[in-house]
Amino acid sequence: MEPSLEKLRHSTAHLLAAAILELYPKTKLAIGPAIEDGFYYDFDALSIKEEDLPKIQEKMQELIKKNIKFEKTEKSQAEAKKLLKDQPYKLELLKEIKQPSFYRSGNFIDLCSGPHVQSSSEIKAFKLTRLAGAYWRGDSKNKMLTRIYGVAFSSKKELDDYLKQQEEIEKRNHIKLGKELGIFMISDLVGKGLPIWLPKGNIIKEEIEKLAKEKEAEYGYVRVTTPNLAKKELFIKSGHLPYYKDSMYPEMKMDDGSYYLKAMNCPHHHLIFKHQLRSYRELPLRIAEYGMCYRNELSGTLAGLLRVRAMSMNDAHIYCTKDQIESEFSQIVKLVEEYYKIFNLKDYWFRLSLWGPKNKEKYIQEPENWKYSEEILRNALKKLKVKFVEADDEAAFYGPKVDIQFKSASGREETMSTIQLDFAAKKRFELSYQDKEGKENKDVFVIHRAPLSTHERFTAFLIEHYLGHFPLWLSPVQVKIVTVNDSCIDFAEQVEKQLKFAGVRVELDSRAESIGKKVRDAETEKVPIIVTIGEKEVQKKALAVREQGKVNFDVLIDTFLKETKERIEKRC
Amino acid sequence: MEPSLEKLRHSTAHLLAAAILELYPKTKLAIGPAIEDGFYYDFDALSIKEEDLPKIQEKMQELIKKNIKFEKTEKSQAEAKKLLKDQPYKLELLKEIKQPSFYRSGNFIDLCSGPHVQSSSEIKAFKLTRLAGAYWRGDSKNKMLTRIYGVAFSSKKELDDYLKQQEEIEKRNHIKLGKELGIFMISDLVGKGLPIWLPKGNIIKEEIEKLAKEKEAEYGYVRVTTPNLAKKELFIKSGHLPYYKDSMYPEMKMDDGSYYLKAMNCPHHHLIFKHQLRSYRELPLRIAEYGMCYRNELSGTLAGLLRVRAMSMNDAHIYCTKDQIESEFSQIVKLVEEYYKIFNLKDYWFRLSLWGPKNKEKYIQEPENWKYSEEILRNALKKLKVKFVEADDEAAFYGPKVDIQFKSASGREETMSTIQLDFAAKKRFELSYQDKEGKENKDVFVIHRAPLSTHERFTAFLIEHYLGHFPLWLSPVQVKIVTVNDSCIDFAEQVEKQLKFAGVRVELDSRAESIGKKVRDAETEKVPIIVTIGEKEVQKKALAVREQGKVNFDVLIDTFLKETKERIEKRC
Repeated sequence: MEPSLEKLRHSTAHLLAAAILELYPKTKLAIGPAIEDGFYYDFDALSIKEEDLPKIQEKMQELIKKNIKFEKTEKSQAEAKKLLKDQPYKLELLKEIKQPSFYRSGNFIDLCSGPHVQSSSEIKAFKLTRLAGAYWRGDSKNKMLTRIYGVAFSSKKELDDYLKQQEEIEKRNHIKLGKELGIFMISDLVGKGLPIWLPKGNIIKEEIEKLAKEKEAEYGYVRVTTPNLAKKELFIKSGHLPYYKDSMYPEMKMDDGSYYLKAMNCPHHHLIFKHQLRSYRELPLRIAEYGMCYRNELSGTLAGLLRVRAMSMNDAHIYCTKDQIESEFSQIVKLVEEYYKIFNLKDYWFRLSLWGPKNKEKYIQEPENWKYSEEILRNALKKLKVKFVEADDEAAFYGPKVDIQFKSASGREETMSTIQLDFAAKKRFELSYQDKEGKENKDVFVIHRAPLSTHERFTAFLIEHYLGHFPLWLSPVQVKIVTVNDSCIDFAEQVEKQLKFAGVRVELDSRAESIGKKVRDAETEKVPIIVTIGEKEVQKKALAVREQGKVNFDVLIDTFLKETKERIEKRC
Repeated sequence: MEPSLEKLRHSTAHLLAAAILELYPKTKLAIGPAIEDGFYYDFDALSIKEEDLPKIQEKMQELIKKNIKFEKTEKSQAEAKKLLKDQPYKLELLKEIKQPSFYRSGNFIDLCSGPHVQSSSEIKAFKLTRLAGAYWRGDSKNKMLTRIYGVAFSSKKELDDYLKQQEEIEKRNHIKLGKELGIFMISDLVGKGLPIWLPKGNIIKEEIEKLAKEKEAEYGYVRVTTPNLAKKELFIKSGHLPYYKDSMYPEMKMDDGSYYLKAMNCPHHHLIFKHQLRSYRELPLRIAEYGMCYRNELSGTLAGLLRVRAMSMNDAHIYCTKDQIESEFSQIVKLVEEYYKIFNLKDYWFRLSLWGPKNKEKYIQEPENWKYSEEILRNALKKLKVKFVEADDEAAFYGPKVDIQFKSASGREETMSTIQLDFAAKKRFELSYQDKEGKENKDVFVIHRAPLSTHERFTAFLIEHYLGHFPLWLSPVQVKIVTVNDSCIDFAEQVEKQLKFAGVRVELDSRAESIGKKVRDAETEKVPIIVTIGEKEVQKKALAVREQGKVNFDVLIDTFLKETKERIEKRC
């Protein structure tokens, strides 16, 4: 980076911190360097949200207009300590600095060796872009801080160009790859936000669903299928109408009343729970469904698989007693981690969203259940030894929740999975069970959980995560056989047949093209294993197996078959 | 039907119409013939409800007591017209009659050629049974009328016998069994015609779908998933709007246009075919989906799994050239027969529905394609040596079709599967492919096929077919282990675990009940295999295996496991 640009960006970071302190005076500051394209600053202030960025940006603009001078000043250790007494992170940094220097800009002063611009008026083109979680000093044992990212350039034009380019990247990602790989299509005649799963995408979707079915069976879930719509009366009972009406699809009036497409699966599942007298012996009852949910998003916001109007959710509702919450919750976390391991997802953390006792409107008034369940979830997370942060006043109306957070390929923080405790459903739906003494017990707790998100969202994420190079078990085409010339076709067809019979998704490319071209095409399709068959292979009844650019020659068919099948079964 | 019985039933229909006019004077009458077991009469009066039937029956009894005479009278066209001036449906019928004759019975007079009984006192045994919707002249483009069905016999005893027999059939029917076996539920809050698949029913549904997926993979199909709705424009293109609008769910207006729930999957599949340039090499392209379709049936007609508003169809569309029609058709017939063999369905026949060349409105005008394809289908059926009948003037608008017909448990003829050839889609959707010479060829033929019907219909059929005793592979619970006393529980749990691990759906009943009671309960649940474990079994490490009432003692666990797994895999 040019020194002048670095100065500019670093100075903008100072301005950001200055603005934050004006808006959130109690904020503790960590560090704020210049980086590629811009800068960031880390704050210990979980209350700052993505939607606050415009407000913060405005405050920075105000400061810029004041033509604030950046002035360097050296301090003794003692003076520095005094100056930073309310800033624990800075104090920690101070310990490592012998001759501390500071930069003052207006009311703001920061421990910093510079250099900086002369005056804030030099900052002409910047934008706060996003918010993310970051551990203090990058160590996951430390506290999670809030990082605000921004970009800054010497001129408005450069900034605009940059933002436009970013937008292009954003647009390309899963949508571009999804198209190239034949995963899904969007048709104007069907409508935006209603993706059509093409054969290759459908294989991925079905593999994920198969995994979920297997795991859920292992974890004692039962499966159901509920209709995509229901009568108005159900959604009045559930509270979706009128509170959520704007997000729902429009009413459909029929001869026996009004119908709505469902926005969530819970109301239907509650009806299944209620439809017979439940005994304590049946609890916990775990009802699972890859259920379709519909949301009436504005058409302008819809794109690819990430912004959709219909989504197939890896949903389940667990009906349990108070005593069972902890073990059910832990089981779900265990399940989530098993899934993530299979998909080789590592960079995630848990976020426990808590009650805000003062926020009477926002939360159901069951203080004891709040206290009890928050403690249970917190302890469970500790026992499970998973990374987690807490967020006050961020729970759902009906109970505390634990979200599992990811950094997306484009760097944004995203919630991938969610586990939500619900004390409200039992009253709304009059849920109850018969206890050991045969008495009715109305204390039924519900856990909503969606570890694999929705098919749409999760697949979009995976496309970017793997950059289209799906692992063998998930790959739409697992093996591509390419022939050197026509004399190899018979043998190639035999191999194809054997692989197909073994359940391997195989394609044979016997076109009259060069072997080089056919291998390149298979690589473009991102097929994980390419088997080339030439005359030598035909003679030896063996295969040349190419994977990630490396070739193994003379692989016996039986060995290849056995190993490939095993890897697929093990989901490697 | 005996002539005397026909007279009796037809006369009772007249009495029904007379009673209706007394109770609902403004009612417009359509037709009211004698049918098997009784009669019906169609009325244009949507206000009549099922719960009104007793009141109407009472009114008919009143009329019978009056000893009303049935008298024939001939009228001129002009007189007839005057007499029927308030009865538009009768006026329409009148146009087709040269010498109109009427029957008067008391105050009621009806356009009718008879014959009838002498006096209402001859009607001694009848019952109004149900109400249904029926289109005027059976044409869905016409108005939906209310049909009242009744049964009538010569004597009270015959009527009672008949009603008792019906009750027996009713007991066996899928709604009763479906409830007892926990297969599905209907909730007023969700709506009639929208069945919810309960865990046990969902297992059956998933097993059927798994079978379909396996077979379709074997037959070279690819699978897709398409949204449950689409924009108005798609259904205009497909011709569903306006021709089929009344049967579709209502319009949903959103910010970017109007949306409808899909009534069929074909429009979506055609879009998938069209979405890329297709080469002759890709044909036949077989696109399969267990797609959800929605029909706006009248709520009064909805019942159980058979009369629904949302159905999950075992759908696929095959895109092929003219030359490929025969082999594709034969492959589908082969597939259908493989399915039927698995489900042990034997009593079926094929019905080839042909063109009616004179019926210009009803059929697409492609005489050569009609002649060619009818000949092809006929020859294919002959070659396959299957039982088939031909039905003139019964084809679909777009081509000839072959339905596979069954006698249901209640004796009614039902279409279970359908194979339909379509020459209309290629024009409507501008389907084409690139031929060997690289030229565009627009002669794409489409075959619609649904061998396993819809999940709803097929499951309803299977419940009755098996009387709830599902074969092992399809049974929600495959093995029930029952213990003689508590000392057997440990061993029983080991056996349960082994079975579960092997993928067998097993339940353990270790309640403190007698073995007799537990076996009876398992039999009531219609579990195919009951394993009883007493002290002897624990000692010998063996099982007592009960199936269809017969018990095999001293069965080794490994043998049982192996055999059970094999039978499940072979779908026996």
